[in-house]
Amino acid sequence: MPKKYVIIGGSAAGPKTASKIRRLDEDCEILMIQKGKYLSMASCGYPYFVGGVFDDPAALINTPTGVARDPQFFSKVKGIKVLIETEATAINREKKTITVKDLPSGKENEIFYDKLVLATGANPVKPPIPGIDLEGINTLQSMEDAIALKDVAKAKKVDSAVIVGGGLIGIETCEAFELAGIKTSVVEMQDQILPFLDWEMAKLVENHMKAKGVNVITGKGVTRFIGENGKLSAIEISGGEQIPCSQAVISIGVRPNTSLASAAGLKTGESGGITVNRFMQTNDPDIYAAGDCVEVTNLITRNRQHFPMGDAANLQGRVVAQNVVEGNREEYSGVIGTGICKVFDFTAGSTGLSQKLAEREGYTNILTAIHAAPDKPGFMGAAPVIIKLVAAKSTGKLLGMQAVGMGDISKRVSMAAMALHGRLCISDMVNLDLPYAPPFSPAIDNFIAAVHMLENKWQHQMEGISSVELKARLDTGEKPCILDMRGPDEFAQMELGIGEKLIPLGALRSRLDELPDDKNTEIILFCKISLRGYEGSRILKAKGYTNVKVMEGGVLAWPYPRKK
Amino acid sequence: MPKKYVIIGGSAAGPKTASKIRRLDEDCEILMIQKGKYLSMASCGYPYFVGGVFDDPAALINTPTGVARDPQFFSKVKGIKVLIETEATAINREKKTITVKDLPSGKENEIFYDKLVLATGANPVKPPIPGIDLEGINTLQSMEDAIALKDVAKAKKVDSAVIVGGGLIGIETCEAFELAGIKTSVVEMQDQILPFLDWEMAKLVENHMKAKGVNVITGKGVTRFIGENGKLSAIEISGGEQIPCSQAVISIGVRPNTSLASAAGLKTGESGGITVNRFMQTNDPDIYAAGDCVEVTNLITRNRQHFPMGDAANLQGRVVAQNVVEGNREEYSGVIGTGICKVFDFTAGSTGLSQKLAEREGYTNILTAIHAAPDKPGFMGAAPVIIKLVAAKSTGKLLGMQAVGMGDISKRVSMAAMALHGRLCISDMVNLDLPYAPPFSPAIDNFIAAVHMLENKWQHQMEGISSVELKARLDTGEKPCILDMRGPDEFAQMELGIGEKLIPLGALRSRLDELPDDKNTEIILFCKISLRGYEGSRILKAKGYTNVKVMEGGVLAWPYPRKK
Repeated sequence: MPKKYVIIGGSAAGPKTASKIRRLDEDCEILMIQKGKYLSMASCGYPYFVGGVFDDPAALINTPTGVARDPQFFSKVKGIKVLIETEATAINREKKTITVKDLPSGKENEIFYDKLVLATGANPVKPPIPGIDLEGINTLQSMEDAIALKDVAKAKKVDSAVIVGGGLIGIETCEAFELAGIKTSVVEMQDQILPFLDWEMAKLVENHMKAKGVNVITGKGVTRFIGENGKLSAIEISGGEQIPCSQAVISIGVRPNTSLASAAGLKTGESGGITVNRFMQTNDPDIYAAGDCVEVTNLITRNRQHFPMGDAANLQGRVVAQNVVEGNREEYSGVIGTGICKVFDFTAGSTGLSQKLAEREGYTNILTAIHAAPDKPGFMGAAPVIIKLVAAKSTGKLLGMQAVGMGDISKRVSMAAMALHGRLCISDMVNLDLPYAPPFSPAIDNFIAAVHMLENKWQHQMEGISSVELKARLDTGEKPCILDMRGPDEFAQMELGIGEKLIPLGALRSRLDELPDDKNTEIILFCKISLRGYEGSRILKAKGYTNVKVMEGGVLAWPYPRKK
Repeated sequence: MPKKYVIIGGSAAGPKTASKIRRLDEDCEILMIQKGKYLSMASCGYPYFVGGVFDDPAALINTPTGVARDPQFFSKVKGIKVLIETEATAINREKKTITVKDLPSGKENEIFYDKLVLATGANPVKPPIPGIDLEGINTLQSMEDAIALKDVAKAKKVDSAVIVGGGLIGIETCEAFELAGIKTSVVEMQDQILPFLDWEMAKLVENHMKAKGVNVITGKGVTRFIGENGKLSAIEISGGEQIPCSQAVISIGVRPNTSLASAAGLKTGESGGITVNRFMQTNDPDIYAAGDCVEVTNLITRNRQHFPMGDAANLQGRVVAQNVVEGNREEYSGVIGTGICKVFDFTAGSTGLSQKLAEREGYTNILTAIHAAPDKPGFMGAAPVIIKLVAAKSTGKLLGMQAVGMGDISKRVSMAAMALHGRLCISDMVNLDLPYAPPFSPAIDNFIAAVHMLENKWQHQMEGISSVELKARLDTGEKPCILDMRGPDEFAQMELGIGEKLIPLGALRSRLDELPDDKNTEIILFCKISLRGYEGSRILKAKGYTNVKVMEGGVLAWPYPRKK
């Protein structure tokens, strides 16, 4: 008798599992249960649909050749039976059945499975804030949400909106609204947006958003949604300020949807996701799980974590299919924590551990470097890329990488992700043979140059100071000796105004008499990207100055307001 | 007494070495000798200068902040003394001196060194073809060449040109001429352009060039340059055809410039480059070498090879500086063989071994996969990326990757290069955690999808046939059963015309009666990118067909003319 595979969930992990099962076993029976109406939605595309990058919602559910992924498609092309608008309400593990309810009719039914796959996804967190049920407050999680917000954006029904939560989805939704001509505020309770970035990197993204007209508010939560006639009219944030708006989008995160699993006695972990082994198998050997409802291993920290990402869901679905059909033969080893986000003309990406995450994980001996540079030769139309590397000082092993800027971020984060998967160390990466030609990168790619900086710091050829540390000290009234190594023209155009003295690098050797007599005085150098700052530091050290530091990233990565 | 470092060569490896030496030792004496007038030229930018991407030659020698890298700059900013228009004519290893000749005056001089660095570069090969000395025949190797060709292009002095040699420089120069409005032919003696690619990948690039109006001729050499009044008027190629042209550019490769080294008894290797150890040190412990004049280790084959690339030269210069100043402490382990090239709206890149190179190196058990797909979701404006992976069948270890197409090739080749540096295997790469968001990639990145295909073939879930093998068989008159799995609309738009029968994937299960009765008959399937071809093959195998193959890459990677 042919095996029967039942998959609960029809968004990403579910359809991937079902399709791959079919490719591995043409004769089995495959049934996919979906609570909503839509299947295989490209949900990561919702913000671009809302923002008007494209207008036909069908593009979100069609195959690349334009065929809708509906139950007929799955049945005819894939040999997969799909029940939509059908909720799985219980799992009976003893009998190996699930109870399903046809939502339009309310009829219940019991279905047998040989192997069951849970791909129940995650639900957006809705905070218990007064007024949360007012009209005009949405999430952007479902196709229905996307269509509703698209309607709002297109019909110009609102002229101002608030995004609650400055994570990936929040920022993408903010861009969508701004593109649609809606004045948008982002309210984030933490002291920065995009929490996968370190503060100073996130601040650079925030500055870019502000330059684009977005009202970004960090360090404040929403205390109240204020309505008129049942419709949102403003939000109140901590401190009492009110921001008028007729639309809000809540994007403060998602929680794994595990009620069905838990009710059936399947284990969940500390992160809240369903516990699975390396084969994506739950504690019931006939039940597997994949996608936003599970927790996975972080390959760097070895912790279990909830990692609700569309790409991971698809990969997990493929692994589950191989294991349910052919026995546990394919491992899903885990994630390294990679994410990327387009923010107007900027891109922000990260892979592995940020400095703050590494510190939170207990790493005590961390080496970091912030490197800023154009992403290709100037004559090819370069754009800046700012990279922060995090490594373990004892071994030189890369722990993480973040990159922001207008240049090609996606490539550099991809490289770093591969380096983390390969467990590469500084010495493995200083002489990488990468694809170089002027349309694509400088002769020494930004990623390699950042590794060189990390090596220079590691070998004590350079001592760095972060903009954050310097600013904190300036704020306490300290007045360290700070030298700007740029040229007078550059200084005239852009000036930090932090008490620095301009001595162009080429003049440094002849102007040493202008420096403090005490060679143990701390001297902090910078330039546009701090390469000249670094060269200057080498000169000063050779001249006997014992406490010379380079402000990493220079003017380009300075996250605070400048004098000019 | 301060150490004296002498560097012969001022293009890429030389200035990098000199600058890094200064950063490591502020007190030493550094002298750089350059035969020509220019220093630190961004020579990889010449084609873009010629083609009019920018017009000021100063951009090729300026720092990112616009300062010319001339002897004054090196002296003032870097503390490096430079002699230009000065030729090093001999090395006296016993006395540790070099003889230099001031070219304008002819005066000779002897200079002492503590450590000597050879960065003498490479010279373009000029074949001994009749007429080679006619006016109008250039190379594109020096700043003077670039300025001369720019003048030709800008002044519209010629209306047709021939590029002799279809390698990286040849193809870039071809694009430059076409952009400048010059009708251009490329003549390549081998049966394909871009020899680092396998034939079928190179053919896709060639097709794109032809679509852009370039006359690409492969498999023929230039037999004669024909002139009128000492000026080029045509070239003759093997077979006797003449191509009228008033400009030719020879780009058939470069040879390491080792005459100085050889005369001093320094060893060179089989590739012709100077032999260096892992510290970039020659057989004289006081003499190091870097850049286009050396041979380096290929990390995959372990062979020594000549690898004249600007990025490698810079990295080697950095290594040499560390070793000459601080003793042999930094290794340059070698290259993996990475290259990339923009060709109009196409990009072609490669890293590691191509299939033909792997075969030439003696690998007998090679696994390959050709994967074609859009580089992001269709609604984000996708462009095709065609990837070929080469792996060792016994271990699943990646040996090489090539990619061509209009999509983001640079990112995928960079990832693959990192995978090769990390010595990753198929199982390390099937579940990569890469930066996914719709503006940057599909949910399963093209690189991962290509690895999935490789795994499917490795695990015998898919049997592939290359377009090249199929075409060769068709050319002998064979008429295998070929099924096109696409939809009728797609078929109406594009048709291979190789005797295929159209059975859309969705109809396959119900139209099995149209297939040969003998289930051992070979059946070859394809679609646009061959994903549906693959799904069809799984159905047919399950139905008892024993000899089912998928034509890899589908219509998108078909390198031959189509019926429609």
